[in-house]
Amino acid sequence: MTFPGTLFSKSIHAEILILIMAYGNVFLAAILSFSVGSSLAKCGYQSCNPTKPNRVNVHLVPHTHDDVGWLKTVDEYFYGANNSIQHAGVQYILDSVISALAKDPGRRFIYVESAFFERWWHQQDEKTQFQVKQFVNDGRLEFINGGWSMNDEACTHYNAIIDQMSEGLRFLVNTFGKCGIPRVAWHIDPFGHSREQASLFAQMGFDGFFFGRLGYNDKLHRLNTKTMEQVWHTNENLGSPADLFFGALYNGYGPPPGFCYDRGCNDPPIQDDPTLFDYNVDERVAKFTKYAKDQAAFFQTDNIIMTMGSDFQYENANAWYKNLDKLIKYVNAKEEESGIHLLYSTPSCYVSNLNAANKTWTTKKEDFMPYGDAPHNFWSGYFVSRPSIKGYVRESNNILQVCKQLECLKTTKASSERLREAMAIAQHHDAVTGTEKQHVADDYAKRLSMGRVQCQALISEVISSDISQKTGFKMDATPDHCNYVNISICPASETQNSFTVVVYNPIARSVTSPIRLPVNQATYTVMGPNGTTVSSQIQDVTASTKSVRRDRGSATKELIFMATIPPMGYTTYQVTAPSMNMISRLGSIRHSRPATTINRVDGDVIISNEILSLSFDGITGLLKSMTNLGSNISNIMTQSFYWYESSTGNNVSIQGSGAYIFRPNKSDPYPLFDGTSVLVKVVKGDVVQEVQQQFTPWLSQVVRLYKGQSAAEFTWTVGPIPIGDGLGKEIITRFDTNVQSGQMFYTDSNGRQMMKRVLYQREDYPYVNSEPVAGNYYPINSRIIINDTMSQFTVMTDRSQGGSSLSNGSVEIMIHRRILKDDNRGVGEPLNETGQFGDGLMVRGTHTVFLATPKKAAYIQRTLGEELYMKPYFYVSTATGNQSPVSSSFISQALPANVHLLTLEQLKPNVLLLRLEHQFEIGDDKAFSKPVTVSLRDLFKPFGISDVEELSLSANQVLKSVDRLQWKIEGSSTTTPQAFKPIPATAPDFNVTLNPMDIRTFNVTVSRH
Amino acid sequence: MTFPGTLFSKSIHAEILILIMAYGNVFLAAILSFSVGSSLAKCGYQSCNPTKPNRVNVHLVPHTHDDVGWLKTVDEYFYGANNSIQHAGVQYILDSVISALAKDPGRRFIYVESAFFERWWHQQDEKTQFQVKQFVNDGRLEFINGGWSMNDEACTHYNAIIDQMSEGLRFLVNTFGKCGIPRVAWHIDPFGHSREQASLFAQMGFDGFFFGRLGYNDKLHRLNTKTMEQVWHTNENLGSPADLFFGALYNGYGPPPGFCYDRGCNDPPIQDDPTLFDYNVDERVAKFTKYAKDQAAFFQTDNIIMTMGSDFQYENANAWYKNLDKLIKYVNAKEEESGIHLLYSTPSCYVSNLNAANKTWTTKKEDFMPYGDAPHNFWSGYFVSRPSIKGYVRESNNILQVCKQLECLKTTKASSERLREAMAIAQHHDAVTGTEKQHVADDYAKRLSMGRVQCQALISEVISSDISQKTGFKMDATPDHCNYVNISICPASETQNSFTVVVYNPIARSVTSPIRLPVNQATYTVMGPNGTTVSSQIQDVTASTKSVRRDRGSATKELIFMATIPPMGYTTYQVTAPSMNMISRLGSIRHSRPATTINRVDGDVIISNEILSLSFDGITGLLKSMTNLGSNISNIMTQSFYWYESSTGNNVSIQGSGAYIFRPNKSDPYPLFDGTSVLVKVVKGDVVQEVQQQFTPWLSQVVRLYKGQSAAEFTWTVGPIPIGDGLGKEIITRFDTNVQSGQMFYTDSNGRQMMKRVLYQREDYPYVNSEPVAGNYYPINSRIIINDTMSQFTVMTDRSQGGSSLSNGSVEIMIHRRILKDDNRGVGEPLNETGQFGDGLMVRGTHTVFLATPKKAAYIQRTLGEELYMKPYFYVSTATGNQSPVSSSFISQALPANVHLLTLEQLKPNVLLLRLEHQFEIGDDKAFSKPVTVSLRDLFKPFGISDVEELSLSANQVLKSVDRLQWKIEGSSTTTPQAFKPIPATAPDFNVTLNPMDIRTFNVTVSRH
Repeated sequence: MTFPGTLFSKSIHAEILILIMAYGNVFLAAILSFSVGSSLAKCGYQSCNPTKPNRVNVHLVPHTHDDVGWLKTVDEYFYGANNSIQHAGVQYILDSVISALAKDPGRRFIYVESAFFERWWHQQDEKTQFQVKQFVNDGRLEFINGGWSMNDEACTHYNAIIDQMSEGLRFLVNTFGKCGIPRVAWHIDPFGHSREQASLFAQMGFDGFFFGRLGYNDKLHRLNTKTMEQVWHTNENLGSPADLFFGALYNGYGPPPGFCYDRGCNDPPIQDDPTLFDYNVDERVAKFTKYAKDQAAFFQTDNIIMTMGSDFQYENANAWYKNLDKLIKYVNAKEEESGIHLLYSTPSCYVSNLNAANKTWTTKKEDFMPYGDAPHNFWSGYFVSRPSIKGYVRESNNILQVCKQLECLKTTKASSERLREAMAIAQHHDAVTGTEKQHVADDYAKRLSMGRVQCQALISEVISSDISQKTGFKMDATPDHCNYVNISICPASETQNSFTVVVYNPIARSVTSPIRLPVNQATYTVMGPNGTTVSSQIQDVTASTKSVRRDRGSATKELIFMATIPPMGYTTYQVTAPSMNMISRLGSIRHSRPATTINRVDGDVIISNEILSLSFDGITGLLKSMTNLGSNISNIMTQSFYWYESSTGNNVSIQGSGAYIFRPNKSDPYPLFDGTSVLVKVVKGDVVQEVQQQFTPWLSQVVRLYKGQSAAEFTWTVGPIPIGDGLGKEIITRFDTNVQSGQMFYTDSNGRQMMKRVLYQREDYPYVNSEPVAGNYYPINSRIIINDTMSQFTVMTDRSQGGSSLSNGSVEIMIHRRILKDDNRGVGEPLNETGQFGDGLMVRGTHTVFLATPKKAAYIQRTLGEELYMKPYFYVSTATGNQSPVSSSFISQALPANVHLLTLEQLKPNVLLLRLEHQFEIGDDKAFSKPVTVSLRDLFKPFGISDVEELSLSANQVLKSVDRLQWKIEGSSTTTPQAFKPIPATAPDFNVTLNPMDIRTFNVTVSRH
Repeated sequence: MTFPGTLFSKSIHAEILILIMAYGNVFLAAILSFSVGSSLAKCGYQSCNPTKPNRVNVHLVPHTHDDVGWLKTVDEYFYGANNSIQHAGVQYILDSVISALAKDPGRRFIYVESAFFERWWHQQDEKTQFQVKQFVNDGRLEFINGGWSMNDEACTHYNAIIDQMSEGLRFLVNTFGKCGIPRVAWHIDPFGHSREQASLFAQMGFDGFFFGRLGYNDKLHRLNTKTMEQVWHTNENLGSPADLFFGALYNGYGPPPGFCYDRGCNDPPIQDDPTLFDYNVDERVAKFTKYAKDQAAFFQTDNIIMTMGSDFQYENANAWYKNLDKLIKYVNAKEEESGIHLLYSTPSCYVSNLNAANKTWTTKKEDFMPYGDAPHNFWSGYFVSRPSIKGYVRESNNILQVCKQLECLKTTKASSERLREAMAIAQHHDAVTGTEKQHVADDYAKRLSMGRVQCQALISEVISSDISQKTGFKMDATPDHCNYVNISICPASETQNSFTVVVYNPIARSVTSPIRLPVNQATYTVMGPNGTTVSSQIQDVTASTKSVRRDRGSATKELIFMATIPPMGYTTYQVTAPSMNMISRLGSIRHSRPATTINRVDGDVIISNEILSLSFDGITGLLKSMTNLGSNISNIMTQSFYWYESSTGNNVSIQGSGAYIFRPNKSDPYPLFDGTSVLVKVVKGDVVQEVQQQFTPWLSQVVRLYKGQSAAEFTWTVGPIPIGDGLGKEIITRFDTNVQSGQMFYTDSNGRQMMKRVLYQREDYPYVNSEPVAGNYYPINSRIIINDTMSQFTVMTDRSQGGSSLSNGSVEIMIHRRILKDDNRGVGEPLNETGQFGDGLMVRGTHTVFLATPKKAAYIQRTLGEELYMKPYFYVSTATGNQSPVSSSFISQALPANVHLLTLEQLKPNVLLLRLEHQFEIGDDKAFSKPVTVSLRDLFKPFGISDVEELSLSANQVLKSVDRLQWKIEGSSTTTPQAFKPIPATAPDFNVTLNPMDIRTFNVTVSRH
């Protein structure tokens, strides 16, 4: 990964040859022996332009902020296509910056989004690549943040964040060596900042973290208390090693007003030619100097940072640099008098100078959610916007993890690369957030879909190959991955009377999970491994799940059975529809029994399994109570749907609800239960019991309890939301329980740490309760919890949503939004998703809900959380022949319940990337919140482990080489962060000990068996 | 002027040193002896990229069109200031193009406007200058046209055109040597093309001329007849040497639709990375190929030209070149199949290829005036727009010529440079045209004013020095140049009872010209050289000429006398107000006599002098007849003012009248004579007789006949044009005579050749009479003539105007316009000039009118034309002492009446630029339309002539080295143009023979006496 000397020599020769050619002359042969061995990389802090003592040093940071999709698609942005929507072309930005850097070694530039940089890099010739490497080595071009995208923090799952960061950082380090390791995290645009994101950044080895957006009153408070820059305690479990220095930027991420030199700005250029008209140097210097002094008054040290750039700027970098060169020259010419010194800098050079100031810094703990840029402008709408994209992203992460695991096992034509990149882009803060234009949302979905197709081919090829190897049975090459099973389309199961279901479990423990398939026969036998027949159930396809396509999907029934799959392994099931005369002979062989259907009830309805029991009011059909049978706790609760009317602005504020902003017209939502019965049907069978509810013609729900599952599923189908009345609508589900939670509730941070939330309160600043609903909405990536001493009520989500607990015992989650006006944050389209026939978007999702004692709840919640985002993956093969169901695991033994196999990914044929995670927090669970040790030796059946090297979380540096800047903090005599210093995983056992919330990352060198 | 080898060596060393520094290494000393002697300039036709046989060769010409002022001032454009009005920054364009050219030796760029290039050049470091010189030498950067600006052709005087072209071309040749000599003229944007302009271009040595705008029906006709490219016979007098190959561009000066790659364009970039989305190479190639084939069908050869650029484009040249590189690559990859071959080219390379095609070309004679881009959209409004700027420009040219002449005589602190440059910019096609925004018009005026101040200082310093040398009398250092004499302000004459008037005559013949000064005493004596007392007249200041300033100008009277000044020399007059008791003693000495004033008349009024007599109707006060007393011809004629209502669009066309467009609401103008008497006053004195008329409160006129003058002056003062009725108004003066001119009239072409005009007819194409007035308006730079066999009626203007003869015997000239709507050609402001108090602009101008026999008229018209634009310049000195009036000439003898001293300008202390012009056309006058010979030997008193070298008209090449491309034309067996091969002006007499319409240009090496 270091910069190869040979390439260097080769390219310098090329440079000279070009020079020679340019002058049409023959050069002395002696030149060709020219050596540049002394030109070692001098990137990093030592490459910073020097600051001056006794001055306010203004760090000018030339930068561009390049969304990997927003108003245009990522490739439209890259190429500069579709400029009528927005003028932006990243290819030109990078071309232009490289040219501008070549003009003066003092100039600096930072680049952030690796998805773009990688596109550009591969189009460059060797000469340019050489030049760029030189600039990187010199610290003239510095990569900051370096993820594939600049991910959102509210709608992203930590698994996807780690992956997308690693994807970008891997490209950088592979391309540029150690100078390609960013030192500073840079989330200048995301709309709110999570604690888990900061924690992950700390674990990735960043020295500092800067962002541009924070609550208007938080910012005001910080300015007044000089706390724009602090040390963030990002994780109680991890302690000091997870501390992260952060800075909130003074002016968002733009330049000082009047000093923007980009194409879209109309600020006066510096006119320093006295022979021409309009000479303005004195006026410009005075104005800038005043601004710098004003800013400096709010900060702790003699250093301030100014972001000289903005969205897609630097397409013509020369205009920027030419004027900045002059600004620096003329301001510095008066520095004796003004005390202001300007320099080209980078965020890392700025951090380095702050660090060198040797100050003692204050600290903070909580997150920056939700973001409000003004009293009525809370950016809590995007927690929910485009719920289908959010669901698709979560599901795609699941497929990607399966894909990457299996990619380690066999070389295939297909690769995870496309889905890795699509997922990395989808984490962008205008992607999974739902704040992009419709055609861009379509582009993200298309990329995910294309990536999934690749991964699906990979998955079935690897498993089929394994089956073939183990059993000799050849599966068909193109099995049915049942991509439209959500609308009861799966041609293989619909049309064949005999097929094989292959189910893969990416979790390192055995799981039992329902499989639901659209079928057309009256009954089926489902045979598992070892000839066992598995209990199955047949029931009618519901109205909301039947195919809406005319060309495909004729299934009238669903076949349901519980699949049990070994840890990181697969099981196959042979499904056969017996002929009519066979059925009579099936006495001893179980075949799927039709479920009992009750269309009309007298009195309350109860569904139950071994663990839970839910009762529904016989008259209204609404949920009435939930009982945990094992713990013997019960809770009266109701659940229904409501809608907020989207504000279109009012006398108080013109702000309306939109893709970004949530602003209800009033704080009380309107009920979607009209008082009559919502009960449609009760279905009870051997596998699952369910209550089917219809709230409105466009809103239905099925509440399910599968055998043996510790939580009930509330699967709602919402849409098209009617808009005939001209009103925007934001739909919530609300559980009203008698849990005595008061004003307190908990939401997860990116699916990992739990954050305590208290209504109308913020820890860092005096909160103004201007928007009682929207201002108390928090991101829900995976779960929301209320509790009291007796019981904990938990709702697990299948995608990122937003919600709150606005009153004692209540939990509400927004599930869909359809809004008719844009909210004026740039996207320029109302969030009014429509399908191909002009209908509003329909969305289906599931809340997995349980009631448990506080003691037991964490275990359920943590393991269920893992299972929900790492579900078993199945496909259907119709190959015929001697098909004997089989089950196989790729690991030698299940891992303990507190250890999550977060990443298994192939880096090179004999090098795997492995991440193991302790998925409990301290205090979660008596048993599982303890340190746990796992031996890697012989863990993976297909290969032995010859070497293990521990890496930073982002896998772009060896852990022991991570050397983060140390900060003095108030109330502590030691500096922070301490280094992560785990017990090394050494041969022969390669024992890995994990403490609560630990994630440990390894390069594992393997030899294949 | 050649490229100095020493600089070359020095700079290549600098390049290498930079390379060394960049790599931080020590280079072998041997490199420093590196020599580039073999790298000779290879600019010109031999540097063209090759075309391919059997292909349609598409010459892609990357270019930018940079107005030296339009919506922004020239310096705003240069710096990129005021971008909220229009994004445009020329400094960045040149920076960026140079960077882009450095990337590939095959790329080409042309640059046109030297005013901008010179600004940029002086800001560059030596390294960049070296690099640019290299590009120019290689033909990668080629200067095209090369004037200081791209001058207008309708509102410009040939003297100013020649000066402005020479100003730019001189800079180029001085900077770049022979590679800085443009070969092609390029008027892509001016709104109509004059014959004289083309003739001047031919005389400047250009091989071809391209333009973008021509009449919509002319263009259609040319396309259909494949005559977009022809040879233009530009001057009947000069014949073949004045022939000029020209091309009308296919698509204006923009790129093909869909293939613009500049910041303001939203065309799709070429997306050729198959790994990304939206790959579009095939679609782009197909679309371009079709366009190229479509275009090629309208042209004669296998070459077509495409202008790849537009207004202020190439600020980020990389975006253009990157996509053009790809376009060339991918189209050429299919050239076998498509027959289309693309190459980077320049207009000169295109011309060279057309020439090599060895075709026989058709020819044309007439001009391209007026330009109509659609049936109701005639660009004949700008002939008149901003009459005050037009007048100021013409007057400034006069001062500049005086200034340059005198600059040859003595070195002063002041210089003509500022006024030369201001005048050169003012000739721009959005400057003198009046089509710029108001603040830009103000900027032009300011520059002219600043230049005039410099020149005025120079003028008085040189003359005062000469007076001092000759007489010993010291004039004051800061005399009064009476800049506001038009509103009767001249502090020196107003407040002093004794002062000296110094009058300089820039014409090479003696002239007698009125001097009018605001004064406050009842009478004055005016003493000329040799103690002669000059007849003078005192009369009241008129209402329209009295000072409108509160702080200055209290004069109630005007002193008028005729000054007689020797050829290219000066005369001083001592003016004294005698004390009251002196007056009685003045019996024998003449002092100014009060004029007779008649306020009320009975019967017709006649004013007359020795030559003319004008009668005015006693009742209406309007002109009634004009008589040439000498020729004894008389013509019944009337003169009055009218207004056209500016159209704001109608059912036929939405086009309204505006800065560019003239479109009257109906073809009959409304009279401004209300039927009552316009007669205010008749004043008769010893010097002048005049009739003062008042037509409306805002429109007055004085008709004057000075003693001895062969023409009457009609001096109108118009404005503020009332707009209270919400109607735009365009004011004309109209003479209705009984000259039997039919549909025929004559207007000058840039003040030189006369063009015959026939109503509703064009020689080149079938004319559609869609706009009977606007479509028959022609530019009048200096004169409009109607005649019949008996008499010629001539109106001479003092600035560029527009007019016509719309019926037999009628002549109309538009004098002022005030319009309330923009005409949608980009300027975005209505042509509603307002003063500092919000009033509409007042304009005063003079038509010099005479009636003569056709035989004698040309002499009057030609010499009067010269005298009107080269008026005597006067200033007033109040120095006291022994002041004896003096007269002195800088030439030894007057030149013949047909020889005009067009240019006398200092290039170096001992090298002068001299242009002599034969100012008659063949057939103008029996005596003066003959060849004439002048000896330069001893012509200029202050210096002897040691050497004379004849140059091209633009003075950037030695005439004998001009070697223009030869073309075969229909109907001729010889190729054209033949070279200008005058009889050389050789020692000792340096005889210069001039044929009609000749201009000969010389470098004259002098030794000062």
